[in-house]
Amino acid sequence: MDRPDSVGRLRTAVSNFAKEWLPGADRWCVALSGGPDSLALTAAAASLLPTTALIVDHGLQDGSAAVAQRARDQAIALGCVEAQVLSVEVGGDGGPEAAARTARYAALAQARDGAPVLIGHTLDDQAETVLLGLGRGSGPRSIAGIRPYDPPWCRPLLGVRREVTEAACDALGLQAWRDPHNNDARYTRSRLRHEVLPLLEDVLGGGVAQALARTATALQEDGDVLDELTTRAAALVVTEEGLDAVKLARLPAAVRLRAIREWLLAGGARNLTSRHIRGVDALVTAWRGQGGVAIATEFTDRRVFAERRDGRLVLRHTPR
Amino acid sequence: MDRPDSVGRLRTAVSNFAKEWLPGADRWCVALSGGPDSLALTAAAASLLPTTALIVDHGLQDGSAAVAQRARDQAIALGCVEAQVLSVEVGGDGGPEAAARTARYAALAQARDGAPVLIGHTLDDQAETVLLGLGRGSGPRSIAGIRPYDPPWCRPLLGVRREVTEAACDALGLQAWRDPHNNDARYTRSRLRHEVLPLLEDVLGGGVAQALARTATALQEDGDVLDELTTRAAALVVTEEGLDAVKLARLPAAVRLRAIREWLLAGGARNLTSRHIRGVDALVTAWRGQGGVAIATEFTDRRVFAERRDGRLVLRHTPR
Repeated sequence: MDRPDSVGRLRTAVSNFAKEWLPGADRWCVALSGGPDSLALTAAAASLLPTTALIVDHGLQDGSAAVAQRARDQAIALGCVEAQVLSVEVGGDGGPEAAARTARYAALAQARDGAPVLIGHTLDDQAETVLLGLGRGSGPRSIAGIRPYDPPWCRPLLGVRREVTEAACDALGLQAWRDPHNNDARYTRSRLRHEVLPLLEDVLGGGVAQALARTATALQEDGDVLDELTTRAAALVVTEEGLDAVKLARLPAAVRLRAIREWLLAGGARNLTSRHIRGVDALVTAWRGQGGVAIATEFTDRRVFAERRDGRLVLRHTPR
Repeated sequence: MDRPDSVGRLRTAVSNFAKEWLPGADRWCVALSGGPDSLALTAAAASLLPTTALIVDHGLQDGSAAVAQRARDQAIALGCVEAQVLSVEVGGDGGPEAAARTARYAALAQARDGAPVLIGHTLDDQAETVLLGLGRGSGPRSIAGIRPYDPPWCRPLLGVRREVTEAACDALGLQAWRDPHNNDARYTRSRLRHEVLPLLEDVLGGGVAQALARTATALQEDGDVLDELTTRAAALVVTEEGLDAVKLARLPAAVRLRAIREWLLAGGARNLTSRHIRGVDALVTAWRGQGGVAIATEFTDRRVFAERRDGRLVLRHTPR
């Protein structure tokens, strides 16, 4: 990696992204952790448009306030017009990583003041996300990974390898913060990065991270079309009492399963797995009078079952 | 694994498969390598319908004829009405594994005499295939894995773990042949089985093989719908001179890229990658007068380029 070139490549990536997705933007925010990816992104962003750096202090590690303050100083030195430290309280829902993520995005959404928010996810993050989704096995949606543009979130570096952001930090003399958790084998994502991906690269002959990222892009495109078909189909199968099972049965599996998923989500379902969705689907395609399927929901005071009644899929609520 | 139970589970799997996909079948063939998966499958198949075992001798290893003969004897002992050894010559196209596969399927197709052919692929084979496809990164099609029913090929054990076929062989006192290549780290598939999958199971907390198999099923369902949409769209964009680039540009990416792929394949393309297809797609979506995209084809006497001319995508052939 030629170091000065790495700075140019990041600038080009951000500039091309802005042309494609943010043609009218006259300012933006960047989510800055102080790590190499977001630090290099901040440098590129600030060279192109008035940039506000948003630094989330999760308060989870000793000295996190000092890390945030240092990132704030770096952002100002890089030419950001503003840099705010956002202190958040991390809950416990869904594990430590998920909870930190929820708190982080909520804080960024609140502080962005109407501007798009650039996030430093790289091609390597995308590859790790696809592998994580594969392990869950909850369908193509979970391996479609991260979207480059999901307003207000913008990820201009999703086609860039992590080694480029590292090189750019070196070239700019930026001392990036190293998250100690990134090298901590307790964390799944870190083990994917340091153990699984290198082994896959070795076994499959290289290019695996790029291949995973290409797969994610293609699955996002496929999902867009199938979601659109599902929206249209839903208009035909949704009734006041529930889903019309006879009409559902005529839909192809890909659309039928998505329509069931959307219906369950609208009914308050949480933590849906493909096993739940296929269980409900069996009420449609393999109906032999079987009982309902228990669905985990947002409601703590009752239990919810998806069942078939008079040719309709309905949700039955019973007090706990 | 309860051993007698394993025999019953295989029989049930084959019987359910037959009910779903082969309702009128009164005989079938089984592809028998002598390994535990196909041997256990042969036992289950022969207990249900008149079964012809087809044993392919690839002639690649010393003693392969003796291995085939032994499998033939086992098939007869298991109650097959017939057992044929098919000797094939393996070419060199696409690497040793691909060449052996091509020769094997050609021999089976010729010998099956109109009957469906059962193949002993298990859930573990499916998981390995998905990982192989991921490494190629040539799109959702390549990670959709193996189809359970792809006439005349039938894979009734695709939902069954390999440990069940092993247990069934033990229970039936069958001495399965162990392919020495299966434990040879030179082979990619073998390394996926013995190194990558166990590591992924460890890192992601188990259930990875099942998750990969569920993903494959969902991607097959998605692909069916998208292929159908593509066939319909192709009827609108295919002209005598080539593809109508203006109409193509209005299609969603998932359908557009599939239509381009189908068109290139129909024009003789081989070894198509997503890079080729997206290169041609750029002639549609990012047209700025750029040159054609070189396409590898079945033709050895000329070079073929996909290019844009007068609002059409066309294939230009030039002598080598």
